Amino acid sequence: MAKYDNFLMDCWYVAAWDHELIDGKLLARTILEEPVLLYKGDSGKVVALDNRCCHRGAKLSNGRREGDCVRCMYHGLKFDATGKCIQIPGQDNVPPKMGVKSYPVVERDHLIWIWMGDVAKADVAKIIDIPYLRDPAWRGMADYMHYDADYRLIVDNLSDFAHLAFVHTHTLGGSEEYAFKTKPVAVERLENGFRVERWSMNSGPPPFHRKVVRNDAPLDRRNIGLMHVPGIFFLETLFTLAGSGAEQGNLEGARQYRNCQFFTPETRSSTHFFWNYLHDYQLDDPTVALSLHDSMVAGFLEDKFIIEGQQEVLDADPDFKMHGIVSDAPLAHFRRVLQMRIDEERAARATVHPAAQMAAAA
Amino acid sequence: MAKYDNFLMDCWYVAAWDHELIDGKLLARTILEEPVLLYKGDSGKVVALDNRCCHRGAKLSNGRREGDCVRCMYHGLKFDATGKCIQIPGQDNVPPKMGVKSYPVVERDHLIWIWMGDVAKADVAKIIDIPYLRDPAWRGMADYMHYDADYRLIVDNLSDFAHLAFVHTHTLGGSEEYAFKTKPVAVERLENGFRVERWSMNSGPPPFHRKVVRNDAPLDRRNIGLMHVPGIFFLETLFTLAGSGAEQGNLEGARQYRNCQFFTPETRSSTHFFWNYLHDYQLDDPTVALSLHDSMVAGFLEDKFIIEGQQEVLDADPDFKMHGIVSDAPLAHFRRVLQMRIDEERAARATVHPAAQMAAAA
Amino acid sequence: MAKYDNFLMDCWYVAAWDHELIDGKLLARTILEEPVLLYKGDSGKVVALDNRCCHRGAKLSNGRREGDCVRCMYHGLKFDATGKCIQIPGQDNVPPKMGVKSYPVVERDHLIWIWMGDVAKADVAKIIDIPYLRDPAWRGMADYMHYDADYRLIVDNLSDFAHLAFVHTHTLGGSEEYAFKTKPVAVERLENGFRVERWSMNSGPPPFHRKVVRNDAPLDRRNIGLMHVPGIFFLETLFTLAGSGAEQGNLEGARQYRNCQFFTPETRSSTHFFWNYLHDYQLDDPTVALSLHDSMVAGFLEDKFIIEGQQEVLDADPDFKMHGIVSDAPLAHFRRVLQMRIDEERAARATVHPAAQMAAAA
Repeated sequence: MAKYDNFLMDCWYVAAWDHELIDGKLLARTILEEPVLLYKGDSGKVVALDNRCCHRGAKLSNGRREGDCVRCMYHGLKFDATGKCIQIPGQDNVPPKMGVKSYPVVERDHLIWIWMGDVAKADVAKIIDIPYLRDPAWRGMADYMHYDADYRLIVDNLSDFAHLAFVHTHTLGGSEEYAFKTKPVAVERLENGFRVERWSMNSGPPPFHRKVVRNDAPLDRRNIGLMHVPGIFFLETLFTLAGSGAEQGNLEGARQYRNCQFFTPETRSSTHFFWNYLHDYQLDDPTVALSLHDSMVAGFLEDKFIIEGQQEVLDADPDFKMHGIVSDAPLAHFRRVLQMRIDEERAARATVHPAAQMAAAA
Repeated sequence: MAKYDNFLMDCWYVAAWDHELIDGKLLARTILEEPVLLYKGDSGKVVALDNRCCHRGAKLSNGRREGDCVRCMYHGLKFDATGKCIQIPGQDNVPPKMGVKSYPVVERDHLIWIWMGDVAKADVAKIIDIPYLRDPAWRGMADYMHYDADYRLIVDNLSDFAHLAFVHTHTLGGSEEYAFKTKPVAVERLENGFRVERWSMNSGPPPFHRKVVRNDAPLDRRNIGLMHVPGIFFLETLFTLAGSGAEQGNLEGARQYRNCQFFTPETRSSTHFFWNYLHDYQLDDPTVALSLHDSMVAGFLEDKFIIEGQQEVLDADPDFKMHGIVSDAPLAHFRRVLQMRIDEERAARATVHPAAQMAAAA
Repeated sequence: MAKYDNFLMDCWYVAAWDHELIDGKLLARTILEEPVLLYKGDSGKVVALDNRCCHRGAKLSNGRREGDCVRCMYHGLKFDATGKCIQIPGQDNVPPKMGVKSYPVVERDHLIWIWMGDVAKADVAKIIDIPYLRDPAWRGMADYMHYDADYRLIVDNLSDFAHLAFVHTHTLGGSEEYAFKTKPVAVERLENGFRVERWSMNSGPPPFHRKVVRNDAPLDRRNIGLMHVPGIFFLETLFTLAGSGAEQGNLEGARQYRNCQFFTPETRSSTHFFWNYLHDYQLDDPTVALSLHDSMVAGFLEDKFIIEGQQEVLDADPDFKMHGIVSDAPLAHFRRVLQMRIDEERAARATVHPAAQMAAAA
């Protein structure tokens, strides 16, 4: 089974938060099973290169950054920001084709985006715009978590509101009864994912929100979830005092959240998870973001425990068959959309490069 | 190599001691390479289910027991003691075939027995009766040990008295000279194993016994070993003062032991080992059982060290060829009997379900 | 891929330093993927046997040495120094063919040499002579290091002076400028390796030497490197005060080193590294050898870090292609010579034992 069966190649993935590169360090990160070196050069330009020196395969991340270039510290070969080898100590000429692969990267709204697929298709306009990450009206704390699980199991989890009541009863969710009282809301099927909107009227604040507002007054709550291929998720949450007319458009006194989540496959069975949970009130109080951050981490660890368990089950028996339930509708739609895109890519690759495709499938 | 080449399927295996389930906890235990969930319901009934929720493969052992049922704590699906799914939150109807596999289990004499093979053949009458475990005339301390080794290497070890002198000189055995002075005793070949009886007259007490009786007087000793497929071993031991006529039937002042051992494959190369070493004297003194328990653990760890070393040798070179010696007779007979039973099962399976057999062998 | 594609079989490898066996202990060491038991018998004879009892595969290294023999402590089988089984407890006769494989071993100049290939070709005259290890005019500290890397990556490293400036700037090397100022010296291609000689005039002492001599005066330095198949390396180093005429043969006041390194494959991706760094001055001051030893360890750990990183790269992508640079000349020659010898062996093996060869390639 080739990685092309599991990953969408021609799309932008989050490779890092900008603050991970702020000190100019050489960051090694495996992305879609490729070893990638990431760094920010002296000019401020972000560079992404194959992390293997083309000479003897030494890791460039064990090397030294020089300006916007990197030097392998095995034999001193120096590579520029495009991956071209520009110096070989003890040798006057550098063969023109000597170099390592470079990947298109874009720094935008504190995220480093990388394109792992066909370079000719790397259109910057395809990067999803996330205004909250740059808007001073929102405050959050960007963070990272590593999963030992297929990214699709995590995307499943987010495509699915049914698990909140059971997995996150005491953190993000609320009461278990919620799961029994409510029906899954209609999913808006989009070409590249789905949208779900759901109102929940006159219920107590969920634990993460209550901790911050210190008030048990019943609230009206609106959640809008948006999931995009290959694994980008936004959850817009709005709370108003119950009965204040939010459903009719009165947002006075509303408190809102923007949950931004980005999943990037490391390997077929491990995932980089970048996230930020932003809020739009009490922006001068840093403890709000800290409290929300901690609540999210607690909730994510609940998911991680379940999902890494699923991965163990699938590792032990790759033939394990799953059986759908009604609330799987968004998840099932998303899996279909994602697989269709992956299949299209594979078909196109087979047409253009049949031999390469066969080799990749080997 | 399919697991059906290594395991006897249609027989009862020990899955747990009853005390492991006493608090109603959800116990995950891999048995014959299948992930099994074990628990005792509120009614006292013991339940064994496939440990993977049929919905998305989450581990049911990470769920919650509710009476005799278990609820998956991912999306809240509830399963009864037969594995049938009886509730899906947010969904009015449960498809009739929704559920997980259940395994026949029987609690008897403090052991939980499980049947991993063809359910139609799960005859409770086939469970071996072990009166000592329920008889108040015997006292012991049930325990468990995990082996990183093929269960057959451990069974080999127990089928073989020749190792006592070398492996257990200072624990269970005695002097090395014993190995040179004695000849292997005749083995009674049984259809499902073997029986060995051996007397040793007028020799010092072995260390484990001397620790308890605090007396170096020479003893007459009778050992009767019984080995049953797939890996159940009993050793009956009797000590009397040397020359007191035990061989002629005078058992006055005799002290006896019953060593009950049960081996259940976890995987092809790891094993669950359940054991109890019972004694029939000084029953009101708890230190006797504690001392014997500790002596056995010391001895078993000596075996474990050797046997896990063998497993490393076989893992490194699966083609390693063993060469028999005379004292292998019981071991060799037992391996033959066991393999014959395994081959019979495979042949029967091939006749009934040729396609399933081929898939299993893949 | 069989191990015969990676290892030269018919040659002497270093199996141990003599001091490792001094107390008569049973040393288990995997060599060329074979489990070997090494020990020095009471007679002083060094013995190398297959470390697996021919009976049930128990490790003989878990056994007990008896004189020049070893007894398996599972069932007590005893083997003499040739591997012949000479006693089976409880059995009057030992089958004449019962035994374990033995390997030719030679103790010479503090090294234990072993021959893993065709015994008929094990000519002691083929062992490389290393007079420094026995000559009282040289003092050092023999040591051992384990590498998680293919031995050929380590041999590459030693075949290559270009890495000194970058990997060992602050330990064994000196300034990075050296790499830019000098050209790789011509390599003398030998049938079984290569020889490199290089003078460096009027430069500061490298860190390891400066620490010992405590003097920054510029020096003239001569390095002569000798590499032999399968992985034996000598580096002769000479320092004199700059301008004292060493190149013209005046060695008055010279200080010399002999770096003796021996690489023995443990597996395809791990290596035993035996080494000694000897010096010829201040022989009555033990701190010189200690300081040099510590400098070497520091330098070797720098190599190990880089090389084990290469191994990770190759493990992740066995198809990774390396690209040569000019300074690879010695390395490339050595790889060619080594592979030629390996190919010759394989061809000869195929002629003599075509079936065995096919089995080995399986």
